[in-house]
Order: sequence, then C-alpha cells, then structure tokens
Amino acid sequence: MYNINPDLQQERDGATFNPYELTIWWDGGTEKYEKRKALEKLFLEDSELKDDLPLSYMSHKQIYENSVRKAVLIAKKLRDLHDVGELSVDTYTALLGGTLGCALLKEGNPLSVHFVMFVPTILGQGTMEQQITWLSKAWELNIIGTYAQTELGHGTFLRGLETRADYDEKTQEFVLNSPTLTAYKWWPGGLGNTANYAVVVAQLYTLRKFRSLAPFIVQIRDEETHMPVPGVDIGEIGPKLGMKSGNNGYLGFKNVRVPLNHMLMKNQQVLFDGTYIPPKNSALTYGTMMFVRVVLIRDASLALAKASTIAVRYSAVRRQSPIDPNKPEPQIMDHITQQLKLFPQVAKAIVFKANGDIIYDMYAHVSQEIEKGALERLPEMHALSCCLKAVCSADAASGVEVCRLACGGHGYMDCSNFPTLYGMSTAVCTYEGENTVMLLQTARYLVKAYGQAALNPQVQLVPTVAYIKKIIEEPEFVGFDGSSEAIVEAFEYVAANKIRIAYERVEQQRRKGAIPEVATNRCGIEMVQAAEIFINTKKEGLDLCDLSIRNKQKFLVCKYSQNVVVNKQFDMLQAIN
Amino acid sequence: MYNINPDLQQERDGATFNPYELTIWWDGGTEKYEKRKALEKLFLEDSELKDDLPLSYMSHKQIYENSVRKAVLIAKKLRDLHDVGELSVDTYTALLGGTLGCALLKEGNPLSVHFVMFVPTILGQGTMEQQITWLSKAWELNIIGTYAQTELGHGTFLRGLETRADYDEKTQEFVLNSPTLTAYKWWPGGLGNTANYAVVVAQLYTLRKFRSLAPFIVQIRDEETHMPVPGVDIGEIGPKLGMKSGNNGYLGFKNVRVPLNHMLMKNQQVLFDGTYIPPKNSALTYGTMMFVRVVLIRDASLALAKASTIAVRYSAVRRQSPIDPNKPEPQIMDHITQQLKLFPQVAKAIVFKANGDIIYDMYAHVSQEIEKGALERLPEMHALSCCLKAVCSADAASGVEVCRLACGGHGYMDCSNFPTLYGMSTAVCTYEGENTVMLLQTARYLVKAYGQAALNPQVQLVPTVAYIKKIIEEPEFVGFDGSSEAIVEAFEYVAANKIRIAYERVEQQRRKGAIPEVATNRCGIEMVQAAEIFINTKKEGLDLCDLSIRNKQKFLVCKYSQNVVVNKQFDMLQAIN
Repeated sequence: MYNINPDLQQERDGATFNPYELTIWWDGGTEKYEKRKALEKLFLEDSELKDDLPLSYMSHKQIYENSVRKAVLIAKKLRDLHDVGELSVDTYTALLGGTLGCALLKEGNPLSVHFVMFVPTILGQGTMEQQITWLSKAWELNIIGTYAQTELGHGTFLRGLETRADYDEKTQEFVLNSPTLTAYKWWPGGLGNTANYAVVVAQLYTLRKFRSLAPFIVQIRDEETHMPVPGVDIGEIGPKLGMKSGNNGYLGFKNVRVPLNHMLMKNQQVLFDGTYIPPKNSALTYGTMMFVRVVLIRDASLALAKASTIAVRYSAVRRQSPIDPNKPEPQIMDHITQQLKLFPQVAKAIVFKANGDIIYDMYAHVSQEIEKGALERLPEMHALSCCLKAVCSADAASGVEVCRLACGGHGYMDCSNFPTLYGMSTAVCTYEGENTVMLLQTARYLVKAYGQAALNPQVQLVPTVAYIKKIIEEPEFVGFDGSSEAIVEAFEYVAANKIRIAYERVEQQRRKGAIPEVATNRCGIEMVQAAEIFINTKKEGLDLCDLSIRNKQKFLVCKYSQNVVVNKQFDMLQAIN
Repeated sequence: MYNINPDLQQERDGATFNPYELTIWWDGGTEKYEKRKALEKLFLEDSELKDDLPLSYMSHKQIYENSVRKAVLIAKKLRDLHDVGELSVDTYTALLGGTLGCALLKEGNPLSVHFVMFVPTILGQGTMEQQITWLSKAWELNIIGTYAQTELGHGTFLRGLETRADYDEKTQEFVLNSPTLTAYKWWPGGLGNTANYAVVVAQLYTLRKFRSLAPFIVQIRDEETHMPVPGVDIGEIGPKLGMKSGNNGYLGFKNVRVPLNHMLMKNQQVLFDGTYIPPKNSALTYGTMMFVRVVLIRDASLALAKASTIAVRYSAVRRQSPIDPNKPEPQIMDHITQQLKLFPQVAKAIVFKANGDIIYDMYAHVSQEIEKGALERLPEMHALSCCLKAVCSADAASGVEVCRLACGGHGYMDCSNFPTLYGMSTAVCTYEGENTVMLLQTARYLVKAYGQAALNPQVQLVPTVAYIKKIIEEPEFVGFDGSSEAIVEAFEYVAANKIRIAYERVEQQRRKGAIPEVATNRCGIEMVQAAEIFINTKKEGLDLCDLSIRNKQKFLVCKYSQNVVVNKQFDMLQAIN
C-alpha cells in the first residue's frame, strides 16, 4: 500500500456523490463491475505480462518483440477462459481493444487485427464450409491472419482499389496481382512481421469481366519457415506516432494463385465455370462498417477518461503560483483557468460514455430490423454513426491534448502516459472513415432531409432530424429558459439553420449549372459546419439529460462553448475505480 | 536527380508570384539567402552527420548516443568557422535551434543548452573575471554546462524555488542543498548524461538572512571520470513526447560546497564577509526572459512552414475520391474541405514569419532604450511578447496537427516527419512561460490600461493599446468596408470590448470584497479571452498589411475564423527553397 497525497484525499472526501454508484453506472451494473475487477486481477497481476523496461526506452524491434510475447500470452489466457466456458464477447473486446487490452499493450496488439478483423470477416463473409476450414486454425493461432484492404494510393474511395483477382477457369484459381506501386496493400496491422495469412480485398474479374470487390483468403508466408510465399512482396511500413507495436505492413502480389474456394462466398459467389452470382443484399456489408464505427464511438470515452483522471489528480496534487499573495501556493485546480481546461474534459468523457451506450443500443435495434429486411432506418443510423464517429474521436483526441498541456512540463514526459494516449486517440480520427469524409456523409443526409421538408410540408422526417420541420414552420426561436430541454432546443435551432444555409448554398451552385456532386464540394465548408452542429443536438444535450435521468442526479451540466457551468468535482473520474 | 511528380510540377508552374522573390523576402535579402545555402551545403552534405538508422527505429539510448556524436561534430565545425572568422550570430542560432539545427538533430541537441543558456548566462551575469575563467573552457567544450532553474515542484513561480545556497563566511563557500524531493532540479537539457557543470539558480542566504535568487556555477560531475561529485544526486528524467535527445535531467544537492567566486556577480554581489549588494537594475533580468520569448515568436513559423509544405505537396500529389463521378479522382487539394484545412496554415506560417521579424526589431529597439535607462516601453514590450509567445506557439502546434491530419494515414507515420514536428512545436506551449500564464500576464496589463483610460480621459496610452481610448469614446463600430485596415479596426473593436468586459468583471468582484489577485483569478476566463483577442489585432491584421506592403502584393488574405479567403497557391511554401 502507498500513502495517498493529503490534497488528493481531501478532494475525494469532498465528493457530493457516491463514487461507487457512478462506477456501477459506468460499468453497466454490479455484475459487470465484478467481472471487470476479476478480469483485471487475472491479467494485470500476471507477472509474465509485465514489461521488462518502459516501452519508450526500447527500440522499435524491442517494442515489437515484447508485444508479440505478451500478445501470445494474452491469447493463451483467452483460450483458457474459453475452455472453461468463461469467455464472453465483453471479455474478448476488453482484451483486444478496450481499456484492459490497452493497459496491457500500450502501443497496440499485433494480433488484434487477427482477432477483431480476420476472424470476424470469415465469420461474416465465409460460407459454413469455409468457416469450418479456417476458424479453428485461426482460433488456435495455427494460422495468423490480417485484413488487407487499404492500399498505398487508395483508402477512402474503395472502388479505386487496384489489386486484381482474375479467375482462371482452366485451373479454377484466382490470380492476384498488384499492377502498380500504388496498388500495394498498405497499413494492415500484424502484416509487417506477424501474419501468415490475409483476407485480401481485390477487384474481382471472371470471364474477363469486372464483377465487384471481393474478399479472398490468401497465404502470404510459409507456415513453417515464415518466409514470404512466391510472388508475395511483403514488409513493415515503419514506426508511427502511436500504436507502435501494431506491426503495420505492405503487401504486393505478382501472379499469386489461390483456389476457387478461397474467395469468401457467403454473400456473392463465383461458380467453377466463372459464372458470377451477385450478393442479394448489399446493406449487410454496409452494416459491418457501421458496427465498427459504433464501437469506436463507444470507446471514444476511454482515452479521454484516462487523460482527465491523470490531469485532475495532478491538479489536485500540484501546488503552484499564489492567488492570494498572503497565502501558500494553492492546488493548481484553484486557478479558474485550470478548471476551464479540465472540467469540460471530465464532462465529455462521461457524456461520450452515455452517448456510446445509447448509440450501441440503437445499432443493435436497427440491425435486428435490417436482418428482418426493414431498411428504413439504415440511412439515419448511418448518418448518426458517421458524424458521431468524427466528432467524438476529434473531441476525445483534442481533449487528451488539453489535459496533457494542463499538466505543464510533466505532461510532456512519456511516463505521464499522455503521449501514448494521444497517439492512440488521434489515430481514430483517421481510421475506419476519415473524419472529414464522415462529416460530409452526414451532411449530405441532412441537406437531403432539409430539401424534402422544404419542398413538401407533408413529409415525415425520421426522429433524428424531425426538428428541421419544426424550424421551417417556426423560424423564430423564443422562450429560452435555461433548462436542459431548452438547451437542446437551442442547439436544434442553430443546427437547422446551418443545414438550411448548406442546402441553400448547394441549390445556388446548382442554379449556376454545377452538377450535384460539384455543387456539394463547393459548399464543403457549410456542409461540414452543418454536420458538426447537428451532432451537438445529440451528444451534448440529449445524452446529458439521459445521464441525469438514469442517475436521478445531474453529475455535470456542461456546454463546450464559452461558459462552463460545473460543480467543482475534482476527482470524479478517479472515483470510477 | 529525381523526377518531380507531374501534378506537383503543374502546381509549381501555375504560381502567380515569383518563388525566388518570396524566398529572398523570407531570408531577409540575397546575402542572407546565399549564406544560408552555403551553410546548408556545409552541414547537410557532410556524410559524418548522417544517421545510420531512422531515429524512430532506435532505442532511447541509441538516439542519445547518435545525437551526442553529431552534436560534437557540429560544435567542431562551428569552432572551425569561428577560427576563420566566419561564425556569425545567425549561423550560431541556425545551428543550435533554427531550421538547420533541427534538420541535423531532429530530436534536439544535447549540447544546445550549453551553447544557448550556459554560455550566455555567464556572458550576461558573470563579471569580467568570471567570463575569462569560464568562457574559453566552455567554448572549447573542455567543460559542458547546463542551466538548472526549474525544480520538480516549481516552475512558473520562481520565488517558490526551494534549492538553497547558504554562505559560510568561515570558509568563504556557498553550501548548496535540496531540502525536499520537490526541490530537485528537473528538466535541464543535457543534464541527464552530458553536462559536468551547471548554472544553478538557488535561494541565496548570507549571514542567515534570505537575500534573493542567485545563479551559481557548480561542478556536478568529475571532469575525468564523469562520475557525480560527492553530494550530487543526478540522472536522466526519461523519454518525452519530442526532443528525445535533449537529455533532460534531475539534480539534487546535499551540502555541496562551491567557492565564493562561483556565484555570478555582475548584477548582485556577496562580499567575503557575507555582505550582500543587491542589483542596481532588475529590469535587465526581465530583459533576458523577454529575449528568449521574442526568439520563440520568431521561430514559431519554422515547424508550421515545414508542416504546411509537406501537407500542401502531399495534397497536390495524392489523388482520391471523385468529385465529379464522370472524371478521374482529383488531387485531394481540389476538395474544398482540404483547402479549408491547409490554406490557413500556409498563411499563418507566413504571417508568423513577418510577425516574428517585426517583434524582433521592436525588441532590439526597446532593449537599446532600456540600456540607456528609459524603461517606459518595457511593460508594453513585455505584454506583447508574452501574448505573442502564447498565441503563436499554440497556433503553430495546432496548425502542425491540422496539416498532419490532412494527410490521412500517411501523416501518422514517423517517416512523414509530422510526429517529430509536433513533438518539437507543442513543447513551446509549455517552456519559457506556460501559455496560460503568459496570456494572464498580458491580460493584467490590458485591464490596467483600460482602467487608466476609463477613469481619466486625459491619459495617453502606448501605441499598442491606444485604440482602447478610441473605443471608449466611440463605442459604436460603423463603416466596415472589407479593407485590411477595416479588418484590423474590427479586431480592435472586439478586443477593446473584451478588455472592457474583463475590467468590469474584475471591478465587480472587487466591489464584492475580493482582493485584486483573487478578483483577477475569478475572472480568469474573461482575462484569457481578452488577451487572445487583443493579440489578433497584431498578428492577423497589422502584420498581414505589412507583408503586403513589403512585397507590393498580397500573397494571402486570411482570417482564421469561419471564412477563408485565399488564392489557391498550392506550393507556396515549397517555393521557399
């Protein structure tokens, strides 16, 4: 045991709420809380899972080797849990991407793409036979896979991918090629040195005709020697700002042949003679992308919660610069400017958490509807998940930096953990849908909805954007009383007007003769602004209300902008333990 | 030679200005340009100054060892230049902190504190005799020094430093002690492993009375064995977000004795019997702090200029996501949202450069006045330098991040150089005056000036804040015509009103019975806002006008806020070569 700093203890003693209650809310109930604590004990107290040296002292090679050693041990422990029937989905995700996984492997897990993308892709896109062939090998780590989609020259625009898979009906094989340097696969985690298999996304050609993008299971390294198989050019792309043990790689193909049954054929098929059978429902693929983003929204709070905790504790412990010259140096949290920096970050961490739970539940509901064939709410869900992914990841990353900078020089040191947290959290702004691309997707949805409502007063808008109609009918905003509901209404009013401006600017460009896509690009600034403001009606207002209703208490009332109304709750997040 | 990407070449060919002219302006004339090119040739083409491996692959120890090897070679080359009479101040600063120095040692130079703080402190605060004793040894690197002021528990508030130097008149020695853990010196660059001497700032006691803070030259390691001398506890504080080869260290003292003549005595003296003679003019110390900040303001453009160059080139070369579905994927710079991200960064890099030159000239002028004993403009210069240091460093660091994020995944890779640039530039937000502390210093000056003008219409305000009076007299802002002058005037109007709000809020708190310092703290939000807006009247407006006047052409008209009015000049900064 260690002594707790008396300044910190005093702040904890001064809490106006029960920290245990907040913890239980955060975890989603006492049962989940108990499970989390047991899991943390099992993994964090395992001496084999300690690092010999802080990662920041290691070379790139040492960081990788240390992470492989630990990743294999973690996978073994997961299999052990599975064998005694105690491996839940929550445990799986907590270890491979969640808080516990990040605590164990601060710079990323070189096997995580194997577990969270290679295996799920075979599950989601492989036939029953393919699943039987590959899944047990993968689960036992007899093969290690990665997911190779992005190329050196192609990320956002999937149709631009250059890797080709040409079906040769004589040998009943696909022939994979990277026709250019920009066609090289680039980024897949674990590809650099770890994986010997990959799901490769390529442009499918059969009978000399382009068909569609399709996923193929391709062996890339020998299972015994681990040397690249003939025709495969492979290596690591090099160190990065964060996730240094992600082991990201590049991959090029020259006439690499895989058998017909290596194309994952649950949704689309190629027959032995080259006949192509397209997927029945492309919305299902759409659903997978959404799922990943929903998970990212849910996890956006994690890095920010850690950063807020560190900064708030530091601000309670650190004393600096007298306020009253006749008194000793105060805790730096007593400087109002420090509160201005940190309280919004604490509030955001909590709001994002509530938010993430809501969107996760909504996704579960909508995806059930989709499975039944009801696609009505798919565009709305898509628009919400895009925008929330962008705003939550950007706010979380910038919030981590605010926390770091609020700790002065000490925040600049690797041992503060801030640099690692920033490296992890800022990456989310780019992967799984670059944030500006995400905002523009949502903006197109909003402008379309506005157009429908403006042109036809009878149209029914979905709940998420229903307020657009109200504001078209009553353009004046009156009666602000400062309540949570009024704050939400005020946000809605601003959002609807920003959407209107974007819509009108696009229409103006179209009247000047621009095609819709060009008109939309020209109004990129207005579009992005509309999407950003729109999502504030969701993340700041509603979820805050929801939080207070769930807990019969308002923990925080926060507006991100100029005025911050908060209780002085120094150690709120620390309380979640 | 290598082939230039055709898309990039096309952008360069399309420039509407003469890149050579801009380069000459940036360098400050053809002579300085030629000198820079010659210097770059001398250092960058030296094969001994290459790295064997990219730094991001190295361990912390390897990074340090590589940087020491190179730092010694650089120092040798500087001495060689000096010996043939070709070492100017510009060369010295370019190599030890400027663009060229950063290009040679991307993670910092473990000897830079020796050259830019240890040596100048002896020059500025040592007597003639002390200078003779120490400077040639230091210049020849027979001794290596650092500057030890900040402590583990004390940075901003200098009077809070705990390290003590007690004069023992019997032996005519000072006895240095670190009474607590928080009294340990913490951060000095080069202290970790490199230095064997340090200028140590300590609380001076003579004849059992506290006198003042004072600087002492203290040997910390044996000149032959490099082992710590008795009573000295020393080591490295560990890796950081950037400046990884800065070799920052910690340092504690237990009854370490140094002779009387090791106290630097140009400004204040201790006589052999313990008599203390205070400094005649404390403004001179004040001046040194200002000088460092002025240099930081001048150099704020460097990292941002590099980052803008990388991002703008990438945006010309990278093609992604069709705008018009009937055309090929465009250069990503054609997406309006990309322009929204990058053009302001290009503009800021240029404005900060112009800005830095102006404030540097102003400092030179004011410090001449100070040497003559005219201190009238000192507070104004102090207020300007504090605020510009804060705003330029914060905007430069966040601008580097905007550039990095605008390059998608590729910006996340260490080989893009963005992570290193960010690590270097964000550090400036904290060192040499933490940014919020800087803003508050300026805000106090502004509020004081407002109070003077509000209470006495006859008072004359200094030029920097003269507009406050105008706006007190004519509170209505009318006649905006969109000209550069009108933009500046609009900024002044907003700034004066923000200063007024801060002033009125502080007065309100005082009427409620708060002492001035407490009242000011309570209004921290309004104070910071006033300072931030105030400085925009300087950096955005005036310097932009100045830039356009100097060059008989407006390169860019930029407002940071919602609307960006820019020419599409893709490769402007690249042109500076």
